[in-house]
Parts: sequence; structure tokens; C-alpha cells
Amino acid sequence: MHLGNGYGTHGAWRMPWVDPTSYTSFDAKVRHAQAAERGKLQFLFLPDGPSYVADVDNEPPHYNLDVMLTLAAVARETSRIGLVATGSTTFNEPFNLARQFKALDVMSHGRAGWNAVTSSGEDVAANYGKRVPARPERYARAHESIQLVQALWGSWGRDAWVHDQASGQFARGDEVVPINLSGEFVASRGPLYIPPSEQGQPIIFQAGGGGNGLELAGRYASGVVGATFSIEDARSQRAAIREAAERAGRDPDEVKFFAGLMTTIADDKRSGLDRRIKLTEHTFAQRIPYLGQMLGLHLDPARLDEPLTQEQLAAASPSPRDPRSALALKVAREGWNLRDILAHGVIDYHPVIAGPPVEAADHMQEWFEAEAVDGFWVSPDVYDDGIDAFVDGVIPILQDRGLFHREYEGTTLRDHLGVPAQYGLDPRIAG
Amino acid sequence: MHLGNGYGTHGAWRMPWVDPTSYTSFDAKVRHAQAAERGKLQFLFLPDGPSYVADVDNEPPHYNLDVMLTLAAVARETSRIGLVATGSTTFNEPFNLARQFKALDVMSHGRAGWNAVTSSGEDVAANYGKRVPARPERYARAHESIQLVQALWGSWGRDAWVHDQASGQFARGDEVVPINLSGEFVASRGPLYIPPSEQGQPIIFQAGGGGNGLELAGRYASGVVGATFSIEDARSQRAAIREAAERAGRDPDEVKFFAGLMTTIADDKRSGLDRRIKLTEHTFAQRIPYLGQMLGLHLDPARLDEPLTQEQLAAASPSPRDPRSALALKVAREGWNLRDILAHGVIDYHPVIAGPPVEAADHMQEWFEAEAVDGFWVSPDVYDDGIDAFVDGVIPILQDRGLFHREYEGTTLRDHLGVPAQYGLDPRIAG
Repeated sequence: MHLGNGYGTHGAWRMPWVDPTSYTSFDAKVRHAQAAERGKLQFLFLPDGPSYVADVDNEPPHYNLDVMLTLAAVARETSRIGLVATGSTTFNEPFNLARQFKALDVMSHGRAGWNAVTSSGEDVAANYGKRVPARPERYARAHESIQLVQALWGSWGRDAWVHDQASGQFARGDEVVPINLSGEFVASRGPLYIPPSEQGQPIIFQAGGGGNGLELAGRYASGVVGATFSIEDARSQRAAIREAAERAGRDPDEVKFFAGLMTTIADDKRSGLDRRIKLTEHTFAQRIPYLGQMLGLHLDPARLDEPLTQEQLAAASPSPRDPRSALALKVAREGWNLRDILAHGVIDYHPVIAGPPVEAADHMQEWFEAEAVDGFWVSPDVYDDGIDAFVDGVIPILQDRGLFHREYEGTTLRDHLGVPAQYGLDPRIAG
Repeated sequence: MHLGNGYGTHGAWRMPWVDPTSYTSFDAKVRHAQAAERGKLQFLFLPDGPSYVADVDNEPPHYNLDVMLTLAAVARETSRIGLVATGSTTFNEPFNLARQFKALDVMSHGRAGWNAVTSSGEDVAANYGKRVPARPERYARAHESIQLVQALWGSWGRDAWVHDQASGQFARGDEVVPINLSGEFVASRGPLYIPPSEQGQPIIFQAGGGGNGLELAGRYASGVVGATFSIEDARSQRAAIREAAERAGRDPDEVKFFAGLMTTIADDKRSGLDRRIKLTEHTFAQRIPYLGQMLGLHLDPARLDEPLTQEQLAAASPSPRDPRSALALKVAREGWNLRDILAHGVIDYHPVIAGPPVEAADHMQEWFEAEAVDGFWVSPDVYDDGIDAFVDGVIPILQDRGLFHREYEGTTLRDHLGVPAQYGLDPRIAG
């Protein structure tokens, strides 16, 4: 099982034990990464917009100040954990993406990964004074950009950098070659002036959905981070990605599928739910009506202390428009009151565990053994202690069950994920 | 006197006491920055292309792997020194520049500066699959980009970020406002999602020449790094910049002028020249004929051990096409042989001191007291010991003479350079 890790949820800043200025604190982010590395997690995974939250009165902006500078700090102050960040192919020059991710790869001694996504938000486009291009153009540019970036990453042959002081030969010039790629949307002559890292070059991640995202994942990705709410759906997503890799001529085992998982780890179930209530109760007034839609019921936000009545449970039917509805109904049938149903995380971005460590370990084991995932992208609830609770509580159980490694297998992200070496474009897909 | 600092010369990698892999070593760059901070230098200044050296067989590429990631590492491992890097306005989106420099500013607790330049090299343009735009377009885009970046930096009012855990107010939304700027070449809606740093926002540097560069410097820059070879020329460059600032309605004391200075510090003159010969002798075969052109003479590369003859000295006349020619003739008249004339650095990018610490201190005092400069951008010869030799040898002399501070005046780059606070566009130039 492979594990990645992101940063805390948005209500976290208000918790009394949290420094409310963590939003701008690189110290906090480094500390968090070090905790994840203590737990032997294979990688950090930082999403990015860049976009802006509309409601800054009440919540912090959703993203890192800058993912690359954050990972640069983490690279210097950790030694093993992989460093993956999102970079949009829609509003960035491939040469700039290639340069920063390869520099991060060299700086971290071979631990970088690029989550290549297209940007579909008009709020992001507006930061560049542009409109979002139509989907076909976005994905055509994404293909060109990834190929171009991988080619730039491979500008230097594996053994080109000789740095021989005696003879004065710095590099073998005939093994440092321009790439001269020109597409419909992007182009570059190159070469990039950065020698190979300890893993040659960064690996590609993918996180978009749909047929276009699947094709990108199949052709280029070594890791895919997905949003999925059931074992059945996860298994079918994973199978689709593996088939897409095979269609692209690759070994499907080279693409790992990670499901999101949000954790609130506590001593017992009641403490877990209570902690999650503290974190999210400011959202309940909005979420109760939405929970009603998911269940086909009219729910009263004033009656948070009461479970659903027998009549409501009998009349409830999960909405086919939201894949989380079945789980919400299952939790409701267990007899929890409205507040506790929401504290189970039935309306969050990913499945939520709010309870003791063994509950998270059981969930992960069940999904993993069902071949629904190769691992998880774990988002603990609160910067300052959520990752520690996961690392100290859940990881030892997974290790005792033989599901998770006790030590890193090597030093690079490719080592951690079992991804083969690559210099320049993968020759199997360069055609 | 204010001092900035860059990195080593290109022959440095071959010196027996230098790690030849320093080109990719962030450890080396951090160590170097820490040495500069020990000497209380006001800022690091990292030029950037990004372009590629044609002769990678014989010399390392000229630039940092990535200036922003380098400064991110330095920011985490120093506490006072200012962090200035070049970012091209020609091939970067203003929003991306704004984001990374402001994130660096927050990360370093108010120590960032942006050297805003236009890119005129076709080799740089080719990395983006483009041609270099004509000069008027490049400078029009530069003006728009700087104004837009400064406006994005000022998106958050000085007191907008309240992060009040008790009330749940994260920020005053009415003090975090879009900028909605749209020019002929670049545009952005904003806001940028980064609160003010300890210095509010980064400061602007400028390093281009000519009338266009002068206008940029006058309107926006707090620091200008110039290439100049004589006190007279430096004084006239500095006066022109100060006049440009006045024309833009600013106090000319707000713009500091820094002249480049390259140093090879040694126990005595002979050791300094010998060290510089070791560093640069691979260039002599090319440089002797060029030295001849500078002096209007035909010089024989085979006669490195001989000074110019009386006949040659009598016939020599400094070429008006190279401002370094007069100094070259002066050194030749002192009777040095050809090898030693070159070791004086008469064909380098900036004036060179190769000798004992007092020689550098005298040079700096003379220029400073002639009001030719506000300070220097010092480039020591070799990563691994050149900055230490400068800091341990030259700085104490400058301090004893009352020319250089013994401690940082504050914690931010604005503190160090005496630059007033600014939030958003300077109202005097927002016109």
C-alpha cells in the first residue's frame, strides 16, 4: 500500500490549539511533512489552483501560497518523502514547468512528481486575464505540454554530465541536445540546462476525471489521485486507468491509483465525532438541507439533536445524483442524530474516517484487499496534530498487518512507487 | 554603503578545492548565502536567463537551476539577508511572477526583491517557442507587468488579515479586492491570495541599460545594478537614474545604484593575480587577440610572459568601442606581462580586484566617496571560499573606516535599503 498526504481542512484554523496564522507559515508545512516522513508515507501531494476563495471573510484561501516554494522548503528539511505538486498545463509555459519541477527533483535528490492538470475554472483563467479554453483545446495543449516537458527533462543523457576537473570537460555536448518540439499550442527548442537527478527525471501524476483525463493518465501517469466514495466505484476507476495504460502500450502495474481519504483520528468513535463537529459545525446550517436532498427528505436544521424518525427512514431514498447518498442513508439508519450523521463526513470531498485508528486501518485494508486502490491520499483534519495522530495511530496497525512498509525501499520517488527509470520521452509512447 | 552578492565565476568548478558538482548543489548555495549574511551584506542578487550556454563541453550553464527555488532554500536557512532574483517580464505571466515573489517575501519574513527585466536573447525566446518581441513591445509589456504585479502584491490591505479564531473572521473581505487591470499585453483580475509580508510587499530592482531601462528604473526601482568601468561613468549613470526617479515624482534617495565588482581576494597582489590566472587561463588564447583590439595593437598569444614593449606602449591607443580599454592601457603601462594584464580582469564583465583586501576596500571607498555608487554588487571568484575571503578580509576594513554597517538595521530588505513601505501601486505613479 502506498500513501500520500495533503494538508489540513479549512475549519482547522479556528481550533484553539492551532496557530491561526498557519496559512502563511512555512514552518508549519515543513513540520507536517516531517511528521508524514516519520510515518514513511511515500509522498506529499499538494493540489493547486491557483484560484481564490470567494468567502475570505470566513475561510482561508484553499491553496498553498506557492506549491513549488513550499516543496523547496520541504525538500531541504526532509530526506525521503516524495514531493508532488499540481501544475496547470493550461496557463503555464512548458519550459517554466520543466525547469521548476526538474530543479525540485535535483534539489530533493530525486523525489519530485508533477501532477499535470488542465484548468477549467474561470476564476483561475481571470488571474491571467483569459477565458478557459474549450475542453478539446485544453486537453490537446495538455498532451503537447507533457510531452514537451518530459522531453526537456530528458535533454541531458544519463551520463552526459562528466564534470572532469582534470581535462576541463564539463559535459558531453553531444549528449545534451535541443528538443526542437513544436505543437499547435506550445513549443520549445531547449535543451533544459539541468542534468539528471538521482531518479533521472520527475514522474507524472494525474488527477482529472473523464475520458480525456483517463487518456492522459494511461499515457503518462505513474500515479492517479481519484475522488471516489465506494469500493465498487474505486475498483472500476482503477480498472479503467489500468486499461488505458495497456492501450498506451504500458505495463498497467506502472500506474498506481490512490483514493482520497480524510481522517479525524481520536481515542474512540465518540471523541472522533465530537472533534469533527467542532471542526465543521459552522457548515451545518448549509449542509442539513443538502443532506435532505441526498436522502429525498425535508430536514429541519433546528433538530440537530435528533435522529431520523422511523417514518423518515422508511421514506428516504438515496439520490442518484450524488454518489455519497447511499453511505449517508446507511449512517442515518444506524440511528445517529443529524449532527453526528454530518460528523461522519457524508458530505465531504472524500470518504471520512472520524474515530479510532483501527477504524481507518480497517477501511484501508478493505479497499486495498478488494483491489480497489493501490493506496490512499490521506488528508488529516488539522495541520498541527492530525498528521501525527494518523502516523502514530494508524500506520503501526497497517505495518503490523503487513500492509505497509516499515522503511523506505530507496531514496527516490520512483523507488518508493516502483516506477521504472525514464530519460526523455518514454520511447514506447514517443511515437 | 550597501552590498549585494552573486555567485562564483565559471572557471571555478575546475579548482582542485571546489566540488565540481556545485552546479547542482543547493547546499553550496545556502552555505554561500550564509557566509554573505555573516558579513552583513544587504542582499543576494541572482541573475537569470533562462538561457543555455553553447559550450557545455567546457563550461557550466551560466544560471541557477532555478532562482526561486534557490532563494526558497536560502530563505529557510538565513534570517536577515535580502533575496533578489531576476524574473523576465517578456516570457512570464504577471500573476505567476506576483505569486512566487510574494510567497518568497512571506516565507522570508519580508526579504524579497524582484529584478524586473525584459528578455532580449533569441536563445531565451526559443525555449518558449517564440521570437523576441521588438523593443517597444518588450518595454510596454514590462511597464504593464510591473504595475500589474505591484497591484496584485497590494491586493490585501495592510490590516485585512485578522484571523480571529473567536469570531471566525479570517479576513476583512472588503479589504481584499480584485485589481481588474487590463493592458495591451497582459491582464489579471486578481486578487492575489497572499497577505502582506513583514515589509508589505517585495521591492523592485532593475538591471537593464538604455533609455527604456532608465525609465523603468526611475518609475519603479528601489535598486539598480549597473555595469560600469569607471567612476566618471558610474557617477553619470547614477545621476541619470536619480533624475529619472525625480521625473517620476519620487525622492531620488529611494533608488540605490549598485556597481558590479568581481573579487579575487588573497594575501597579496602576486597571490591574487596567480589565483586569477588559475581561474581564467583557459580563456587567454581567445582574450589576447581581443586585448590587442582594445589597445589597437597586434598581440602574440605565444608571448604571455612578456610585458608590452616601449614601441607597443607608444603606439597603443585605447579603443573607443570598449569602455575597459583605458584601464587595460593603464595596467599595461605599469609593466605587467600579458598574462598578468589579463589577470587584472581588464576583459571581465565588471571591474576586478585581484589582490589583498585593502585594495578592494580602497576601490570601494573611492567610488563611494565620489558619489558614483550607493554600494556594490560583489561577485567573488569561487563558490567555496571566495565569499569568505571577502567577508573576512574586506568587510572589517570597510567597517573600521565607518563605511559599512556592523549589524543589520532591521529584519526586512526595505529596512536594509531604507526603502519606504508600499501597499499596492505607489500612489505617486499609479497615474
